[in-house]
Amino acid sequence: MPRPRSVATAAVRLDLVDRPESIPAVATRIAQSGGRIRTLSAVRRLDGTPPTAEIELEVEGLTEDALVAALDGLEDVRAVHLTRALGLVFGKRIIVVGGGAQVAQVALGAVSEADRHNLRGERISVDTIPLVGEEHIAAAVRAVADLPRARLLVLAGSIMGGDISVAADELRAVGIPIIALNMVGSITEHVDLVVSDPVQAGTMAVMAVAETATFDLERQRGRRY
Amino acid sequence: MPRPRSVATAAVRLDLVDRPESIPAVATRIAQSGGRIRTLSAVRRLDGTPPTAEIELEVEGLTEDALVAALDGLEDVRAVHLTRALGLVFGKRIIVVGGGAQVAQVALGAVSEADRHNLRGERISVDTIPLVGEEHIAAAVRAVADLPRARLLVLAGSIMGGDISVAADELRAVGIPIIALNMVGSITEHVDLVVSDPVQAGTMAVMAVAETATFDLERQRGRRY
Repeated sequence: MPRPRSVATAAVRLDLVDRPESIPAVATRIAQSGGRIRTLSAVRRLDGTPPTAEIELEVEGLTEDALVAALDGLEDVRAVHLTRALGLVFGKRIIVVGGGAQVAQVALGAVSEADRHNLRGERISVDTIPLVGEEHIAAAVRAVADLPRARLLVLAGSIMGGDISVAADELRAVGIPIIALNMVGSITEHVDLVVSDPVQAGTMAVMAVAETATFDLERQRGRRY
Repeated sequence: MPRPRSVATAAVRLDLVDRPESIPAVATRIAQSGGRIRTLSAVRRLDGTPPTAEIELEVEGLTEDALVAALDGLEDVRAVHLTRALGLVFGKRIIVVGGGAQVAQVALGAVSEADRHNLRGERISVDTIPLVGEEHIAAAVRAVADLPRARLLVLAGSIMGGDISVAADELRAVGIPIIALNMVGSITEHVDLVVSDPVQAGTMAVMAVAETATFDLERQRGRRY
C-alpha cells in the first residue's frame, strides 16, 4: 500500500490577482527555486479591481523563508501570509460516509478514539458526510481517492451494494482501506473489515491509522466482528 | 461576508511525473486554454522510474473535454482520469474542533441535521478534530481559513480563551462565522453565537449554512441559547 513520505512542507496563504496567468507565474517561480507544489487551493475570492483570490499553497523542498523569497516581487502577488501545512494541523483523515444515524455513531467512536491518540501527539481528523442512494454514495467513495490526507473510509449504513461495491474495489486499489458496518448487500464482500457495532467500527478505524496504536488492519483483513 | 461564486468546475486526476517542472507545465497549458486552476493537490506518490504523483486538479472555465484536451500531449502527464469536483460530492464543510466528548456530541447533532438537508439536494459535510491545549486549538482555528469549502466553525469544549480568542477574531475577519458552546473563558465574547447544548449547536451550525433551511446567523449574532 502506498504510504506518503514525510517531507518538510512550507505553507503560505497568498492574495493573488485572479486571472489565468497568475497561477502559472507562481508555479514557475517555485519550480525555479527548487520547490514542488503539493497543494494549491483557492479558498476564497474577493471582488475588487482587480478581483483577487486567496490561495492556500504548500510547497515541498523549500524553507518558509525561501518560499516567501521566491514569491517576492511577482506581479500578481499582493500579500503573503505564513501558515501551517494542513497536514500538521488536521493530520490523517478518517472519512465516514453513509446514513445519518450510523454515521453519527461511527463518528462518536472515532472522535473519542482520535481524542486519545491526539493527546499523545497524533493528528487524526474524523470527516463525515451523510448521504442516501447508491449513486451518491458510490460517487463519494470514488471521491475519497481525491481527498488530501484521506487514510481510511468507513461505510456506515444498512444496505449498500451494486456500484458502491465497484467503487469500493477502485478505492482499495489506490491504497485506501475500507471498514464497513455489517449490513445488507454485497458491500461486505468488498471491504477490508466488517464490524457490527458502529462505535467500535469508528474506534477500529482510528486505531488502524494511528502510529500510537497496536492494530494491524492487514492481519484483520476479511474478518467480521 | 465573501461568498464563493458558483461556477462550473471540471475535475481530473492526473498521473504526473514528480519533478519540479511538471506542475508549471500543467499550469501554463491550462492558462493558455483559458482555464483557472482552483485546486491542485498531490494526493498520493508512487515510487517508480521515474517517480510519479497522483494530482487532483479542478479547473474553472473549461469543460471536461477541453481540460482533457489541454493536458493531452504534455510530456510529464502519464494518465488523465475524469473525476468529480470535490465541492459537488462533499459540498460545504462544517468544522468542529475541541474536546472529544463535546466534539462527538456536536457531530451527532450536525450529522443528523446534514442528513435531512442532504436528502433534499444539499451537500454538507461535518469534519471534526479532537484537540487539547490552547496552542493546538488556536492553530486549528487559524487553519480553518485555509480549508477548502469550510463555511462555519464550531468550537466545542469546556474552557477556551487567550490565543484561541485572537484566532477566532482572525477567522471571522476572513468571513467564516463561529458558533461556540457555552463555556469558561473569553471565547464566548469572540464568536457569532453561543449555544449551551452541543447537539443543538451542531444542528444550528448546519442550518446556518444550508440553503434549504430558514435560519439567518446574521439575525442571531451575539445571542446565547
